[in-house]
Amino acid sequence: MGEPKDSRIKSKPNIKTASNLSDAFLACGKISKPHIRIIYTWTQRRVYLSIAHHLLIRRCAPPPLPTAARARIIPAIEITTKRIAAESSVAHLSHVKALVFDVFGTVVDWRGSIARDLAAFGAQRGIAADWVRFTDDWRALYQPAMDEVRTGRRAWTILDILHKESLITLLERYGIKGLSDADIDHLTRAWHRLDPWPDTIAGLTRLKQRYIIGPMSNGNVGLLTRMGKHAGLPWDVILGAETARAYKPLPESYLRNAALLNLEPGEVMLVAAHNNDLAAAAAVGLATAFVSRPTEYGPGQTKDLAATGPWNVVTDSFVGLADKLECPA
Amino acid sequence: MGEPKDSRIKSKPNIKTASNLSDAFLACGKISKPHIRIIYTWTQRRVYLSIAHHLLIRRCAPPPLPTAARARIIPAIEITTKRIAAESSVAHLSHVKALVFDVFGTVVDWRGSIARDLAAFGAQRGIAADWVRFTDDWRALYQPAMDEVRTGRRAWTILDILHKESLITLLERYGIKGLSDADIDHLTRAWHRLDPWPDTIAGLTRLKQRYIIGPMSNGNVGLLTRMGKHAGLPWDVILGAETARAYKPLPESYLRNAALLNLEPGEVMLVAAHNNDLAAAAAVGLATAFVSRPTEYGPGQTKDLAATGPWNVVTDSFVGLADKLECPA
Repeated sequence: MGEPKDSRIKSKPNIKTASNLSDAFLACGKISKPHIRIIYTWTQRRVYLSIAHHLLIRRCAPPPLPTAARARIIPAIEITTKRIAAESSVAHLSHVKALVFDVFGTVVDWRGSIARDLAAFGAQRGIAADWVRFTDDWRALYQPAMDEVRTGRRAWTILDILHKESLITLLERYGIKGLSDADIDHLTRAWHRLDPWPDTIAGLTRLKQRYIIGPMSNGNVGLLTRMGKHAGLPWDVILGAETARAYKPLPESYLRNAALLNLEPGEVMLVAAHNNDLAAAAAVGLATAFVSRPTEYGPGQTKDLAATGPWNVVTDSFVGLADKLECPA
Repeated sequence: MGEPKDSRIKSKPNIKTASNLSDAFLACGKISKPHIRIIYTWTQRRVYLSIAHHLLIRRCAPPPLPTAARARIIPAIEITTKRIAAESSVAHLSHVKALVFDVFGTVVDWRGSIARDLAAFGAQRGIAADWVRFTDDWRALYQPAMDEVRTGRRAWTILDILHKESLITLLERYGIKGLSDADIDHLTRAWHRLDPWPDTIAGLTRLKQRYIIGPMSNGNVGLLTRMGKHAGLPWDVILGAETARAYKPLPESYLRNAALLNLEPGEVMLVAAHNNDLAAAAAVGLATAFVSRPTEYGPGQTKDLAATGPWNVVTDSFVGLADKLECPA
């Protein structure tokens, strides 16, 4: 999370004015959107990140910048732009050897997939319920269940078991009775049958040519392996909480999996749609890529719509990630 | 390792006469080679296994069977054959969900690959040595190094480190001096660059359509992942000593990896070219497939030329394994 390396940049913008800085970019007609992305990536500063959000993700111009601030900012941007233009946009990421991916929400659409799976089961069995709400309620029990393990109050327990316990709780809450053990196991394994986002396979296929790719998920190895086969994910390796015996965002979850690949933390990039996951990974030295998934939680999603940290790459699809990392199409 | 399930088979051949039984098969003109394979697979008896070796692997006829013995054996074979003919040849393996593979020697040709890699390095640096002998000497230090860890005399240590230590020992023994740390790391990683046997990729590609496939090797995760990319092995998951934190043939190495896949031991089949590996896996309940690799140790190989235990499948290539497990081409 370094400061800008160009010592010529004397005037460092006040982060408090970040939301007002974007028209400094717009006003500077010589800077294109790709340039702005490059500046953001290289400088790793929240001030640029916020601007990039408005311009590139929310696709709107933030409030105008005061004239005095503009006078300070534009020269800094111009110097930075010239410097960056002479470098590869990914030269500073050349030490990254492996891309590891958050899975639920980042690689696959858990909400749509689970709701469809439950609805199909309900239709077959004549069970009526609001399956989308059921899905959201199931996911709401995910973090509390893992917290029992993270805190050490409970011995190491894989996610399949936590999912099953949460399911049983919800079936009681919804008054759904008469399911067999086999039914419950079948429904628990709906988490093994999640479908990828439309850009996932094409992006992974390109990224795999240049990097080791694998999940780094709180899902267990059996779950991730079966999901990989179901969804056709071309993983090189299956990593996650179970191979580290620690749930994200605990530091060990990232560090032990990097070690399993014989890599230093900085040689591994976490790709995730969740800022808190990226923050925890960055805190222990991993490189970071934010991929926005604005409908992960449905049309009313309020969090993780945009990057909120100084991530190395910010994009909105795996194909976009492959572009930024210059992986051939 | 059950007895024949057909209670009509009253006369059970004496295992001590196994090597003399094969002409009972030959004499019984109604039994084709595929039938003999089926009988072997289904009965899981050493007596049939030995015959199958002679007929199918060594491709020679064993010594003649005494007439008295022949009279006892042929009716048993005929009954068995009729029963088996009505079943799928792999019906008894229908519970197998995952195939896990020994890697060094079974999936890849370590000896040829390492010798080529070392020779190329030597030619580049002007270092003359008998690189094939060096390769054999390097491999000879493999089991003793792991034994230190297996016995608990040494804390858990991954194979890359053991390989590096053995390499340093050998460089001294061969009087090869002046290599840098980077050179030694490069040579150690020759074990990441092993080439597959000619049938490996075609066989794995077919087997992957029906089974979860992954290595179950004493190689560490980083080694196996990079080898997979180097050789184009279409693994679904990377398993091995490191994910179990136990070297084969310790029971934990098989059992913990089966558990990582959410599978019972009997739902996992070990595929290996080494009888001792299969024996250890079978002892803890795994299904077993022997794939002969008669040149793994070079033209003078004396061990593991044929199966020596009651393995579920015996074949001589991964394509042959895919055929036996009825995986579509």
